Parts: sequence; C-alpha cells; structure tokens
Amino acid sequence: MRFQRIPNETVRRLPIYLRALFFSSGRGWQRISSQDIADFVGVNSWQIRKDFSYFGDFGTPGVGYDIEKLIKEIKKILKLDVVQRAALVGVGNLGSAVLAYPGFKMYGFDIAAAFDNSPKKIGRKINNIAIESVSRVPTLKKRGIHLAIIAVPRDAAQPTAEVLVKSGVKGILNFSPCYITVPKKIKVITIDIAMDLARLPYYIPAG
Amino acid sequence: MRFQRIPNETVRRLPIYLRALFFSSGRGWQRISSQDIADFVGVNSWQIRKDFSYFGDFGTPGVGYDIEKLIKEIKKILKLDVVQRAALVGVGNLGSAVLAYPGFKMYGFDIAAAFDNSPKKIGRKINNIAIESVSRVPTLKKRGIHLAIIAVPRDAAQPTAEVLVKSGVKGILNFSPCYITVPKKIKVITIDIAMDLARLPYYIPAG
Repeated sequence: MRFQRIPNETVRRLPIYLRALFFSSGRGWQRISSQDIADFVGVNSWQIRKDFSYFGDFGTPGVGYDIEKLIKEIKKILKLDVVQRAALVGVGNLGSAVLAYPGFKMYGFDIAAAFDNSPKKIGRKINNIAIESVSRVPTLKKRGIHLAIIAVPRDAAQPTAEVLVKSGVKGILNFSPCYITVPKKIKVITIDIAMDLARLPYYIPAG
Repeated sequence: MRFQRIPNETVRRLPIYLRALFFSSGRGWQRISSQDIADFVGVNSWQIRKDFSYFGDFGTPGVGYDIEKLIKEIKKILKLDVVQRAALVGVGNLGSAVLAYPGFKMYGFDIAAAFDNSPKKIGRKINNIAIESVSRVPTLKKRGIHLAIIAVPRDAAQPTAEVLVKSGVKGILNFSPCYITVPKKIKVITIDIAMDLARLPYYIPAG
C-alpha cells in the first residue's frame, strides 16, 4: 500500500492544494509552479514540493506541474475520483450554509440527504435536497451513505454521532462546538469556524 | 523577537490545541499529556511536543502540561490575551452562523460589527449585533477594528476586500468560495467549509 506512508498533515494539505489547482484550471492555466500554489494557499513552496514528492510527482524544474495531471493524482489519493455521497444532520444556519455551498460539488461530494428534528423544516427543500426527519437517519445504511456532516446544537452532537455510527457511517465531519466520542475505527474531523480567525492576530502588527 | 521563529504550520495548529485545552479545562482537568491532546485533535503527540517546544514549554515527563499555564502562553503568542474585535461582512446563512456561533468568544473575539447590503437585513439584530449597511464599512477605521470576516457571495468578495483594506483592515478571514487579492502587508486566510470533508474518504476503508 504505497499511499499509507503519506503523513496526516500532508493529507490535510492536499485538499488545500486541490482547491488552488481547481481555481488555476478555471483561469485557463495548464501548468503551475510550487511558488504559484504557495501564493494561493499560504503554505511554503518547499513544503508543497515535499508533500507532492510523497506520491512521486516532482514536477519539471522551470516548467512546473501539469495542473490536470496533479488534480487527477490528488483526487485519486483522496478517493475523490468517485462521487462521494454524504448526509447532513442539522439544518440550522450552518447546516443551511452547507446545503447551499457550491464547494462540496467541486471536490466530488454529493450531499445526498439532510435531516432535522424541526417539523417546520422537514419536507422543505434547500438546493433541491429535501429535509427529512432525523428518525430516518438509520436509512443511511441501506442507502449506502457512509459519510456524515454534523451541524446540530452542542448537546445533540454526541447522541447524533452514536445514531450515525449505528447507521453505518464511517466518517464524520463535526461542526458542532464540542468533541464527540466514537469507536476507534470511525474517523472524525472536528471543525471550528472560529479556529481559523484565531491565527490572524498573530500576523497583525500592533497599533 | 523570539516568537518570529514559530513556523506558520505551528501557528495554524496552536488554535486547535487551544480549543482542546479549553474543553479539558471545562471538564475540570488541571494537567494534560501530549497524548491526551493528540486524542482530542488528531495530531501526532510528537508533533504537539515539538510545536510546544518552539515557545519553550516542554511539560513534565509523567505529569504532563499545566493546562491553564499552557492556555495563557498560547493566547499570548497568538495575541488572544486581549479582546480582538472583528467585523463581519455578509449576513447570509454562513454569516448568520458566524454571528450566532459561541466559539469566537471562547478565543477572545468580539464580533463587534456586521454589514449586509440587503434592506431586509439592515437594522435587524442577530445575537445582539445590529446589522449595518455595507456603506458603513469605512467607519471601521475610526472604530479601530482591524480584523474582518468575509462571507459574501463570490462575485462580491474582491470588491469587499478592497473596501475593507481601504478602511484600515489588516487581517481578513475569507469564507467566500474564491481567492482574493490584497496588498502583501494584509494577511488573508481563505477557508472552504468543504475542504475538511475532502480528507475524510482517504481514511474510510472501501466497501
């Protein structure tokens, strides 16, 4: 298994590079240097070259990387070369933003189901996705959906995670402001939309 | 300047550690090992020890780190030991989620202003913050607010960034699905809420 050697931190950065490559491709570019990518994403160019070397792409000195080839390679490593279906639980402000966000499609995701417990929301559609009752979360198993996004209030996050795991979900993106505990074989990524703001003041000169 | 040697990637991880420390403290813990932090945040414990060593905290073998001391040190490095005021531009779903999100306060942020161009939203309050017309963004200069969060539609992001920079903003957290171009001295962090989902399939076994 050649890809198992890729460090977690490199895996974390690959989607960042992928995003920059999508945008460069959208601008009509065909090749890109590690310095150009660095300018887009704010990661050092040596780090980018090192990350790419893990999967054997060293670019061509003076010419750079072939953008489409690099997109294809990174997608394959991240298993984004097939459509990945995901479910959302919790359609509040953040959940609604998730449903309306065009970026998921760009990475190859299909937000294929959305659940909420509010009778006012159940049956409504956002971005053509019908909101279902949370009582239907267990149907994820037979629908073959193994990824889920949690955007419920803090107190509901842990019970939601437990129902998701029982429903066959193997990977969870957690936007709720807490940590959740799941069996070791389940991968959880916890996101805090305030966390990225927290590193801005470091870079701002005083006064 | 002792802190200038801290690598960007370490600065990026410090808020992640800080969040885990807040939660541990909230659980009544007083000390924590690098392995406990690793379990919370999904970063290797050796990486955590290395990151902490940049600012001279090596913990005590077998006893771990003093949580409150570590929180204090990290806050100081990130300049979060004073209240940092920030403005939000764009009060759609994502912007509303930002205004309602309790996490900013946890890091010491005060979302002190919010702007939108919709007459339906101007004058309304979310979480006690009155939504102002975007025409008032230039007042940020005299209000002394140097941080801004952009959550406007893609086409509005670049012009919004330009007005913010003219209004004295020095750091921007960009949630809009595009990159923005600003003078070099302005720090921009671009966030994509889909990006973190993109590294989940890598960890999910096939089938």
